[in-house]
Amino acid sequence: MNPACHTLPDLHPDLWACIRPTTLMEAPRLSRWLGVEVLLACETFQHTGSFKFRAACNLALQVAHPHVLTASSGNFGQALACACQRMGKQCTVVMPDTSARVKVEAVREYGATVEPVDVRVMSRAARVEELARRFPEAFVASAYDDPFVIAGNASLGLELADVAGRLDAVIAPVGGGGLTSGLITGLCAAGQGLAVFGAEPAMANDAARSLRAGQLIRNDQEPQTIADGARNIGVGVRNWEILRRGIRAIVEVPEEAIREAVRLLFTGANLKAEPTGALAVGALLAAPERFRDHRVCCVISGGNVDPSVYCEILAGV
Amino acid sequence: MNPACHTLPDLHPDLWACIRPTTLMEAPRLSRWLGVEVLLACETFQHTGSFKFRAACNLALQVAHPHVLTASSGNFGQALACACQRMGKQCTVVMPDTSARVKVEAVREYGATVEPVDVRVMSRAARVEELARRFPEAFVASAYDDPFVIAGNASLGLELADVAGRLDAVIAPVGGGGLTSGLITGLCAAGQGLAVFGAEPAMANDAARSLRAGQLIRNDQEPQTIADGARNIGVGVRNWEILRRGIRAIVEVPEEAIREAVRLLFTGANLKAEPTGALAVGALLAAPERFRDHRVCCVISGGNVDPSVYCEILAGV
Repeated sequence: MNPACHTLPDLHPDLWACIRPTTLMEAPRLSRWLGVEVLLACETFQHTGSFKFRAACNLALQVAHPHVLTASSGNFGQALACACQRMGKQCTVVMPDTSARVKVEAVREYGATVEPVDVRVMSRAARVEELARRFPEAFVASAYDDPFVIAGNASLGLELADVAGRLDAVIAPVGGGGLTSGLITGLCAAGQGLAVFGAEPAMANDAARSLRAGQLIRNDQEPQTIADGARNIGVGVRNWEILRRGIRAIVEVPEEAIREAVRLLFTGANLKAEPTGALAVGALLAAPERFRDHRVCCVISGGNVDPSVYCEILAGV
Repeated sequence: MNPACHTLPDLHPDLWACIRPTTLMEAPRLSRWLGVEVLLACETFQHTGSFKFRAACNLALQVAHPHVLTASSGNFGQALACACQRMGKQCTVVMPDTSARVKVEAVREYGATVEPVDVRVMSRAARVEELARRFPEAFVASAYDDPFVIAGNASLGLELADVAGRLDAVIAPVGGGGLTSGLITGLCAAGQGLAVFGAEPAMANDAARSLRAGQLIRNDQEPQTIADGARNIGVGVRNWEILRRGIRAIVEVPEEAIREAVRLLFTGANLKAEPTGALAVGALLAAPERFRDHRVCCVISGGNVDPSVYCEILAGV
């Protein structure tokens, strides 16, 4: 364990007053169906409907700039828009033009400007650079590769530290690596050695490949997994430094297991999860032997999904 | 206020160890959209997915019979099946053959026997009488018109008494009247005079008509509202005695408002509610002037809904 991780200087003390504690829920029917003792940590009821609000809020609290600019497939943008609105800052969000419609609308509802980008033509990063030149007063925020973002997400690790004694593992989705690196950081800061597993779409498995290779590997382009929160080129540099030492393993989850996990949460727990949010349960389906009879906390990272996408998934029953 | 209501002798003390506390959730987006400060009391995460488990559990704790027999459009049956399974009792549930498929399956999953009935040919009550003759050792449980059921549901009133100070009203669905009479009883037992409103489907408005007439009025047959938990002939006699004195008013909710409420909970609160469970939010849509700028707790009574019905509702956006 890295001794440096015992402090969290980047976590703003006012964060706790802004966020909602995660909603912990035993899931007896899911547990019976899966042969795993499942505890759900639902971030679907966090402000703006995903864990991203933790990071966005910490960032907006920490930076002095009057304008914050970011690229996001949706949830971070929505979270940042809401955090900036609360703190009286301007906010601009670069979003792929394939983003879920509900996410685009929600960003606008919180008063932010949406700048669409066709990622087949131009990278999100290039579009952000363009806008950063146009708005020199803006702070450019990464949705994951940022100390304030990691510290904001670490707040969930600190919360889970309170229940770690009754768990064998925690599983959380891996997109840019912001959530898992935050969990590792927070648990570590609390002095908890609970095993953190990542759940990554098999068709966007850059983090799993990176772990196997021992070095950071990126995708050529954003993989079009149903888990739209995990459509990344790769995990961030700061996230990678934490993951390569701190993550127990990454489970690669096939698309069909992601869909089945959404359905199981609907039927067995009355929980509306977005596909990315269901990845941890998908990992239990994809690697049943690894977790059988273990006590596992699945982080349901978000719930924002277009009704049409959601119902297409439910219809697959 | 009835001085007799200050005690709850029918509430079994072991109930608190069996049930889950309700999940309270501020709903800022819904509040903004509706112009009402909304607090959700979600019973969708109660064991078996609805508030009915409170009543079923209290009843199974209180009666000594080895077999419990009931009629239920689904949620009470599922709850009773689960409660009986936990306490080693046999359970038989009479269900209309139009009941939601997920509800029928869940009753069977908890080890109970389902006895279907075509309510156009024979009433549920008649079918129960038939079975009661066949099983003389069975206790025949009403899903609402029973002191143990009312006391079990009163546990939610006792929980809400803790937050009553920051509320102007609580709204809950009316089917057989078990939930609203329980809420009134529990709040009263806690010494809280918080106003309790009922939300009833307009096409199944027997309770609203009863209040207007000052006497218990029943429907000729079960109205086929989308809110399948409110497809009752009428409220129970015991429930009526409590409602006629204790309920502030009943809001009659059109079918389209029930559907819209399901959609609003999906989009604005990431909450999966069944149509009956969305009735309280439907009441805010149906009677906006009555609740504008008030602080209102909406009881989301249950979340068990067939994916096909749910998606048909969501598609109506």
